[in-house]
Amino acid sequence: MSNFMMAAIEEALKGLDEGGIPIGSVLVHNGNIIGRGHNRRIQKGSVILHAEMDALENAGRLTAATYKDCTLYTTLSPCPMCTGAILLYGIPKVVIGENQTFMGGEDLLKANNREVIVENSQECIEMMREFIEKRPELWNEDIGR
Amino acid sequence: MSNFMMAAIEEALKGLDEGGIPIGSVLVHNGNIIGRGHNRRIQKGSVILHAEMDALENAGRLTAATYKDCTLYTTLSPCPMCTGAILLYGIPKVVIGENQTFMGGEDLLKANNREVIVENSQECIEMMREFIEKRPELWNEDIGR
Repeated sequence: MSNFMMAAIEEALKGLDEGGIPIGSVLVHNGNIIGRGHNRRIQKGSVILHAEMDALENAGRLTAATYKDCTLYTTLSPCPMCTGAILLYGIPKVVIGENQTFMGGEDLLKANNREVIVENSQECIEMMREFIEKRPELWNEDIGR
Repeated sequence: MSNFMMAAIEEALKGLDEGGIPIGSVLVHNGNIIGRGHNRRIQKGSVILHAEMDALENAGRLTAATYKDCTLYTTLSPCPMCTGAILLYGIPKVVIGENQTFMGGEDLLKANNREVIVENSQECIEMMREFIEKRPELWNEDIGR
C-alpha cells in the first residue's frame, strides 16, 4: 500500500474516532499531500463533506493547471457527487482503497479518461464493513438511500 | 418565471453583492423552500460551495424519502459536481434558469431519469454574461478551466 493511501486511512480513522463515518482522502500534487479530509456528515451535520470533498476543500483554491498534476486518494470508491467534483476539476488520476462495500462512479471516471486504480485494501474493506454493520442507517443516509 | 426561480435569482444577487459569483439555488420540498444558497468561492475561499451545494448544505441532513419529493432550482445549468450531488441524493427534478453561458450535466441527469426544465431566463443569462465579461478568471476557476 502506498504512503498516500495510508494517509487516507489515517484520515478515515480520525473520522471514526470523532464518531463519524470512516472514509478518508488525500489530494496529492507532485508527490506532496496538499489537502487531507474525512467524511464529516455526523461531526458537522454536513451533507456535502464527504472525504474527497473535504480534502478538496482543505486544499483550497487551486489553478486548473495544479489540479491537472494531482492524484486523489480515497479509502472508498467515490460516490456520484465526489466523482463529479473529480470531473469538474480535471483531476486525472484516482486511487481507491476499495470498491467492495460500495461501487461509486468509476465507470464515469474511466469514460472521461481518468486513470482509476483500485488497491483492494483489506484494511479499507474491514473498516467500512464494520461501520456499515454497526450503523447501517448512517451509511445509507450518506449515500442517499 | 416561478417564484422559486425568483428566489434563486435573489440568492445569486446576494452573492454578487458580496463580491461573489452570481449563481443561486433553492431546494424546494412539497412547495416550500427548505434550503437556499449561492456560490461562495470568493466569500469563503470554497471550492465546493457552488450554489446548489450551498442550498443542499443549508437544507441540512434529510432522509432519502424527503429528497425524493424535492425540486432543485438553480440559476445556471449545474456543473458535474452539482450534477453528481443531485444524482447522489435522488432529487428527481431540476429547474434551470439558463444553459446558454454554461452547459452542465443535463444529459447525465436525463440519462438517470431526472426531469430537467430549462427556463431560458433572460435575467439569468444577462447576470452571468456580465459577470463572465468582468471577471473571466474567476469564472474559469469556478468551472475548473
